[in-house]
Amino acid sequence: MLKVGVVGATGYAGEEVIKILVRHKGVKITELSAVIDKEEPISSIFPAFKGLLDLMCYKPDPEKMSGNVDIVFLALPHKVSMNVAPVFLKAKKSVIDLSADYRLDQDVYKIWYGIEHKDKGNIASAVYGLPELYHDRIKDAKLIANPGCYPTGAILGIAPMLSAKAIDKGSIIIDSKSGVTGAGRKPDLALSFSEVNENLKAYKVNEHQHKPEINKILSQVAGENIDVIFTPHLIPMNRGILSTIYMKLNKPLDTKGVIDMYRKFYSGRPFVRIYDEGKLPQIRDVVFSNYCDIGLKVTGNTLIAVACIDNLKKGAAGQAVQNMNIMAGLDETEGLI
Amino acid sequence: MLKVGVVGATGYAGEEVIKILVRHKGVKITELSAVIDKEEPISSIFPAFKGLLDLMCYKPDPEKMSGNVDIVFLALPHKVSMNVAPVFLKAKKSVIDLSADYRLDQDVYKIWYGIEHKDKGNIASAVYGLPELYHDRIKDAKLIANPGCYPTGAILGIAPMLSAKAIDKGSIIIDSKSGVTGAGRKPDLALSFSEVNENLKAYKVNEHQHKPEINKILSQVAGENIDVIFTPHLIPMNRGILSTIYMKLNKPLDTKGVIDMYRKFYSGRPFVRIYDEGKLPQIRDVVFSNYCDIGLKVTGNTLIAVACIDNLKKGAAGQAVQNMNIMAGLDETEGLI
Amino acid sequence: MLKVGVVGATGYAGEEVIKILVRHKGVKITELSAVIDKEEPISSIFPAFKGLLDLMCYKPDPEKMSGNVDIVFLALPHKVSMNVAPVFLKAKKSVIDLSADYRLDQDVYKIWYGIEHKDKGNIASAVYGLPELYHDRIKDAKLIANPGCYPTGAILGIAPMLSAKAIDKGSIIIDSKSGVTGAGRKPDLALSFSEVNENLKAYKVNEHQHKPEINKILSQVAGENIDVIFTPHLIPMNRGILSTIYMKLNKPLDTKGVIDMYRKFYSGRPFVRIYDEGKLPQIRDVVFSNYCDIGLKVTGNTLIAVACIDNLKKGAAGQAVQNMNIMAGLDETEGLI
Amino acid sequence: MLKVGVVGATGYAGEEVIKILVRHKGVKITELSAVIDKEEPISSIFPAFKGLLDLMCYKPDPEKMSGNVDIVFLALPHKVSMNVAPVFLKAKKSVIDLSADYRLDQDVYKIWYGIEHKDKGNIASAVYGLPELYHDRIKDAKLIANPGCYPTGAILGIAPMLSAKAIDKGSIIIDSKSGVTGAGRKPDLALSFSEVNENLKAYKVNEHQHKPEINKILSQVAGENIDVIFTPHLIPMNRGILSTIYMKLNKPLDTKGVIDMYRKFYSGRPFVRIYDEGKLPQIRDVVFSNYCDIGLKVTGNTLIAVACIDNLKKGAAGQAVQNMNIMAGLDETEGLI
Repeated sequence: MLKVGVVGATGYAGEEVIKILVRHKGVKITELSAVIDKEEPISSIFPAFKGLLDLMCYKPDPEKMSGNVDIVFLALPHKVSMNVAPVFLKAKKSVIDLSADYRLDQDVYKIWYGIEHKDKGNIASAVYGLPELYHDRIKDAKLIANPGCYPTGAILGIAPMLSAKAIDKGSIIIDSKSGVTGAGRKPDLALSFSEVNENLKAYKVNEHQHKPEINKILSQVAGENIDVIFTPHLIPMNRGILSTIYMKLNKPLDTKGVIDMYRKFYSGRPFVRIYDEGKLPQIRDVVFSNYCDIGLKVTGNTLIAVACIDNLKKGAAGQAVQNMNIMAGLDETEGLI
Repeated sequence: MLKVGVVGATGYAGEEVIKILVRHKGVKITELSAVIDKEEPISSIFPAFKGLLDLMCYKPDPEKMSGNVDIVFLALPHKVSMNVAPVFLKAKKSVIDLSADYRLDQDVYKIWYGIEHKDKGNIASAVYGLPELYHDRIKDAKLIANPGCYPTGAILGIAPMLSAKAIDKGSIIIDSKSGVTGAGRKPDLALSFSEVNENLKAYKVNEHQHKPEINKILSQVAGENIDVIFTPHLIPMNRGILSTIYMKLNKPLDTKGVIDMYRKFYSGRPFVRIYDEGKLPQIRDVVFSNYCDIGLKVTGNTLIAVACIDNLKKGAAGQAVQNMNIMAGLDETEGLI
Repeated sequence: MLKVGVVGATGYAGEEVIKILVRHKGVKITELSAVIDKEEPISSIFPAFKGLLDLMCYKPDPEKMSGNVDIVFLALPHKVSMNVAPVFLKAKKSVIDLSADYRLDQDVYKIWYGIEHKDKGNIASAVYGLPELYHDRIKDAKLIANPGCYPTGAILGIAPMLSAKAIDKGSIIIDSKSGVTGAGRKPDLALSFSEVNENLKAYKVNEHQHKPEINKILSQVAGENIDVIFTPHLIPMNRGILSTIYMKLNKPLDTKGVIDMYRKFYSGRPFVRIYDEGKLPQIRDVVFSNYCDIGLKVTGNTLIAVACIDNLKKGAAGQAVQNMNIMAGLDETEGLI
Repeated sequence: MLKVGVVGATGYAGEEVIKILVRHKGVKITELSAVIDKEEPISSIFPAFKGLLDLMCYKPDPEKMSGNVDIVFLALPHKVSMNVAPVFLKAKKSVIDLSADYRLDQDVYKIWYGIEHKDKGNIASAVYGLPELYHDRIKDAKLIANPGCYPTGAILGIAPMLSAKAIDKGSIIIDSKSGVTGAGRKPDLALSFSEVNENLKAYKVNEHQHKPEINKILSQVAGENIDVIFTPHLIPMNRGILSTIYMKLNKPLDTKGVIDMYRKFYSGRPFVRIYDEGKLPQIRDVVFSNYCDIGLKVTGNTLIAVACIDNLKKGAAGQAVQNMNIMAGLDETEGLI
């Protein structure tokens, strides 16, 4: 039985990690911490856990926590994780970081997050936790940079074509629509119900911090430099990201041919489902699940891919547990189906 | 042309007052202020006003504003208005206060709001701005205590029966369901989209600060002390309050008879609509309007009244303008239909 | 391994039964049927099941289905189940009926559903499937009348007080707020998004067909005739029912005392959680779970109970599986936590 | 006082036309019809109109209606209007058709709507009612083909660039997100609350019937054949369309330069607002208004335009009234601000 800790237990991703692990057969949650006013049982903070997990949640204390865990999930804001991860790594504990802190090269990180990285020693050894691309490296990793929610769907929706060099590399446009939990659990006027409901907006157009992450991974897949156009939108729903992706084919392919390429690329991967010709995924097909569902359509020389995930599952906590399963030699789908 | 100022222009009630007055034929908005980081045009804060009202909104400065207005709307949080109103009253300007600061007797105010009232000199002369009950006093008022959103629907739904002494005075139960704008425009985790959407809760059960306001006015109507049971609920929608009100009849009455009593009571009042037998109002019938719609049903000796309003119109800004119209001798419905 | 069939697999309750059973360790779904245009895999109707359950869903054929199931869930509209259940009962298969067809006495059924009951032979032997009240009878039942969604929360919120004869039996008012899935999955203008969203209404005030069901069970609990006031409301959310219940105490009790009574009454029952003094449940605490959470508050001689359930879990499919677990001698919580 | 009739008064567009005209100073609604079970006052169908308009709504009878109107709004489904418009035109009445029946050439119509056009005699004289492009032709028109909701925002967001020949004509991608009222008021499982809420989907990808309409008008603007990529999405909100439009610049332009081009192009047009650099419109800025708000951003050689409208106002009823104002020589903005 793996002993697991969660740092940042009171955010949406932290809550979701707990929700999964409470029903997971291979682990036991032993430690919880969060920035809170006073120590209290997690079931008092989230009454949904009453009777399921009444463990005390205490204030951040990585040293203490590292004494009683085998693996730790850092469900922390960006710029915070990099101060916490080293404590666990030094104590020889495995770390799955759900923030952006270990996803980018340190130079790119500085540009997009505006500060010098605090843990340059570990950044190079972090493995990007997208199992559909990096399964073997994840197996042996001690530090996982768990992918961002937007990058997960976007990368999975594009990788097969770039890998096959079947699209014009400068043609990629990602138009993403996200539910509100993707923005985190915090007081913020812009996220308040009356501002978001019956509203819809594009934001950080082509300058969202997930763009360099998408570019980095797609460049690795393509073996050459990729620079996408990326527009995120905020949608009045709690969970889910749907990305509509436009790519220019550089060879004659029809929808059926493209579907075959995607199915081959993701063969054996339990959490990617490619839809039949004429069908497209919706958020309701993936919400609360760890699946990434992808539908494809060729029109002229344009390929339109629609990729759907639940931002808190495949886009955060579910993928984090998937990574843990791989690292621990468990069934990759344990707790996730 | 009446010169009008709005203090607290960036809250939901302030925004709504402006939205009404911009289209009102008898007034001109001359001054706007709010607690903001820097002066900027209101159309920059609310782009919906672009081209309609580009007036500068400045930081709170009642002295300055009082020099260029005939009447002022205070769309401020509770406990703030009472510091601002006296400045305008001293300058002989009319004040319509949308907060709770002038609705209660000072002793009751202290109990429910936890502090000593700061403007005891004016509290006694304030007129409760519910035109359906106090039309004549409003005409001559210099200071209006504009009713709360919950009290408006609840009082209008009960007053005819208490006035007729037709119900058991200890039997009144008000079960109210409110949209989220009723809680104001502010960063607050409990009001964030992901917490409110797909959720529903009762709160401040029988201890909401609008309860003493309901009790005060209903006691005036009844001529004896009334103490209601009042449970507010937060509903995942932007606007609207539906109150389901349960009363025990103390004389044999059927639905038709009760409807007649309500219609007689509100005869000549332009903003109360009593539904025919067998019909009940919904939020969609009143939203964005200044109407209070009431449906009635007698079952056994229980009378069930369903009263609907838009919390920002009849429950706040619309009623405030209705009061202004009456005070200024304008058509009561100007700008409101 | 119990072989299970679902009739009405394409409604919300049917979908939810499948969602639970697919992950249930003691059963295997062997048969699915529904009123559909053409036979197709359930994963084609609900793509969320892709890879989880690709079983063919065929048109209604109870005779055929009864040959390959041990137990069957009837997730059918009212007035349809009573034509189907006898086929399975005759074949000695257990039936859990999620409709209202076996919940009422036949005379009352005729009054509320407007037609003569078609299966009077089995109606008397049906057991009302509310395990918190009828656990022992459920164990031996062959035909379960699975409770309605409104009655489940309302009855659980009132039973302890009636059982203790601690309230005035004529004083019970149930003000219920329900999500939209409670109305079923069907084309209906009144249920369309644009009609329900940003709207709120009371409907069938004190004449909803769940009222006689509540009265019947509460009368059994009280040992005398109970007649409640019941007002359902439609809320713009997918799932969940919150019932605010008002009762007049007939003896001096405080909140703490009442909480103790409820905890004692539900002692050992895994799916009822009674909240501590000062705390009330919200929909988010129970949604997607099989719990009924209850909060209590005494004010004067009025007891206010707030009872929350997920209408598709504890209010339908979850409770149905809970009943199946009890009937089959499995752990009552299997598949439900 | 212009006498106005509305055919299809009970759909969302019809309701919205009435809502506007009831407050319009230059017209009087004299006739209403719709496909309904029995004649009844419009205020009984939409209680929001109680006291504002209690006119009887009768079953479709164009001959009768044409006797008492100067102008008629046809708020009918596609394929129905073309059977009704000729009756009014023959009687020398002006017609504003909100359906698609007169927007396309008859050959294209047949391809996209699957049937032969029934009124080929009038199709050629119909004027496309987008005042920002065709103001002068609208002035003299007898038959207006009121634009579709998607085309309105999309065309306004692209026209200035095509007119200036500043973009690669084959590069246009329109990714549109629409609220649910755009689909009309009708019983339809796919539009029911529980299917749409907490969901999101792309549909009719590059094969929506509004695509040929966009292509036709943009081709007129460009003076050459234009073929766009167009993906509509259904968003869980009532009203509003936000289109994110991607275009490849064929000359070096920066954001400021592009903004200037748009402002020049729409100079003097009261309902198009171009945002300053760094600002983008949201649905909340235009909802319930007749504005089309456009924000612009150049990144590399890509221009991203974000165009927002209210689908029932500028995208249907509001634009229809704008056209009526122009035809009748009234102020273009009457009733619309």
